[in-house]
Amino acid sequence: MIERLGKYTLKLNERPSIIAGAGVVGKTEGDGPLKEEFDRIFEDDTLGEESFEKAESSLQREAVLQAMIKSGKPIEDVEYIFAGDLLNQCTASTFSLRELGIPLIGLFGACSTMALSLGIASVFVNCEAARLAVAATSSHFCSAERQFRLPLEYGGQRTPTAQRTVTGAGASVVAKHIANKPCVEAVTFGKIVDLGIKDSTNMGAAMAPAATMTISDFFSDTGMKPDDLDMIVTGDLGYVGSELLLELLKKDYSLDISAQYNDCGMMIYYREEQDVHAGGSGCGCGGSVLNTYFMNRLESGELSKILFVATGALMSPTSSLQGESIPSIAHAVLLSKPDNK
Amino acid sequence: MIERLGKYTLKLNERPSIIAGAGVVGKTEGDGPLKEEFDRIFEDDTLGEESFEKAESSLQREAVLQAMIKSGKPIEDVEYIFAGDLLNQCTASTFSLRELGIPLIGLFGACSTMALSLGIASVFVNCEAARLAVAATSSHFCSAERQFRLPLEYGGQRTPTAQRTVTGAGASVVAKHIANKPCVEAVTFGKIVDLGIKDSTNMGAAMAPAATMTISDFFSDTGMKPDDLDMIVTGDLGYVGSELLLELLKKDYSLDISAQYNDCGMMIYYREEQDVHAGGSGCGCGGSVLNTYFMNRLESGELSKILFVATGALMSPTSSLQGESIPSIAHAVLLSKPDNK
Repeated sequence: MIERLGKYTLKLNERPSIIAGAGVVGKTEGDGPLKEEFDRIFEDDTLGEESFEKAESSLQREAVLQAMIKSGKPIEDVEYIFAGDLLNQCTASTFSLRELGIPLIGLFGACSTMALSLGIASVFVNCEAARLAVAATSSHFCSAERQFRLPLEYGGQRTPTAQRTVTGAGASVVAKHIANKPCVEAVTFGKIVDLGIKDSTNMGAAMAPAATMTISDFFSDTGMKPDDLDMIVTGDLGYVGSELLLELLKKDYSLDISAQYNDCGMMIYYREEQDVHAGGSGCGCGGSVLNTYFMNRLESGELSKILFVATGALMSPTSSLQGESIPSIAHAVLLSKPDNK
Repeated sequence: MIERLGKYTLKLNERPSIIAGAGVVGKTEGDGPLKEEFDRIFEDDTLGEESFEKAESSLQREAVLQAMIKSGKPIEDVEYIFAGDLLNQCTASTFSLRELGIPLIGLFGACSTMALSLGIASVFVNCEAARLAVAATSSHFCSAERQFRLPLEYGGQRTPTAQRTVTGAGASVVAKHIANKPCVEAVTFGKIVDLGIKDSTNMGAAMAPAATMTISDFFSDTGMKPDDLDMIVTGDLGYVGSELLLELLKKDYSLDISAQYNDCGMMIYYREEQDVHAGGSGCGCGGSVLNTYFMNRLESGELSKILFVATGALMSPTSSLQGESIPSIAHAVLLSKPDNK
């Protein structure tokens, strides 16, 4: 049964389990502080493919296949894949999943996709529309740079507020509740928030207000307090967006989450040594970190309850060139450690 | 309750109702055979906006607002909007829905979006994850031409197999079952099918195999026969794709649906007079025709049961330039007349 809490939150009473998660990344991410966590690190960011877009497809397929291997289930048993990415027409997902022969629910949430896909997959499993579902997403530094910013060959200088798109992919396998795996307790799907930021090299500032809205909705819907959670982790606000989030939550909603807070975009790189400016971004940032670092710690019981909030900037290069601001969205998923931990 | 029929079909036992549908279109569509059906026809395809992309956003917002007015429900009561479109990063949907303050589940299914969004909205309502949801999509001839093909100013000749992207949008309002409105009985989410077609001016040929697969899955899952339905209608296969669909279903699955079959892309224009080559295409084609012509005839009881199958070509200009073929997908929704008709 699904219960609506407050105006925006779905309580998943069947508590679907994430029976496996996998995260795979490129070389730069593999040189970062989370290198021991990832399921696979590709030393060559092309993955042997002839274009960066094809490399991203391979990356996402690899995350799905690794997650399936860890789940111990045959891939033919998967009833739906919920997936999306940042490339025009979500081709990283569609080409990656083309040969699998599994129904695809294509999603678009920009960098919020991991929470969106995991949230919808969990709703489907909770209400028995699926017994086994996969949620997946990816991003690639090189395919994102040339699509959203400048050709890599141009060698443009990046601004201090700019984030580095993570070359990475994540996948979660969701199934009926079992005692020894982390589970999904609730989902808060977000509304679009747009405070008028137009600087596409400062995504953190554009997305922070959306995360603020979804996090405050989650707390007011559930009646929980930040202290009830071990961690509140955003997908890719980076250093600039994270600071703004903490400030906005305190100022506008009297919520202080600084004791519980972290951000996958701040966790994935060494800030100074790797020269990543404002941190990591991209669907694959939250996707790869959630499905490795956080899933491992939930599974072991080191973390009991976390809120994963992935944020997406819903602009396109065309909308920016036409002078539009950057509408953003954040979706949140409440995850718990296994019953037996 | 949701019941899984066969391998791919979900039977929605609560039979969520489509309490209102709306379709709005541009001038060319308003000059076609369905002109009396649409809720609004815009004589000026720019809708007074300064770009075609912004015009498409306005078109989708208009469809949502028209559907809400017809539903008699205040828009604040809508719990989720399920929407997507063809523009890069789905900006027609995100900018169109930005001001509404309603949680957005962003979808990407290319031209299959109307069936995808209606299918997921119906699953959510069926399992009480939502009491009131909107499914929406749009496309615009001018924004699609310049994004996928050539700048309009170029005046390029179109091939005989090319379809015309419909300037149009559709929206359905889905709620708990009521006796006097059409309802959704089942959904079949499709798998990606790719038979190697690379000609992006022949989308019908690329998408027909996906429709073939989903329609045959639907019949084998449900045990129904084409005669059990009044209509089987595809979203935008056009003249070329429709012919191939009938041929493939007969040859590969011994299914003859020619007595029940029609296609929104063949219905929306006068083929010869309007010089539309292989017919209409785009998310807004199936979206606007389903929510007007078909919803009106279901509501009156003139049609009892129809299968709406929307097909999407999941390529991007980048994937085509990189020599890739066109993966396609089709999602199907089984719709019934009101109980009291």
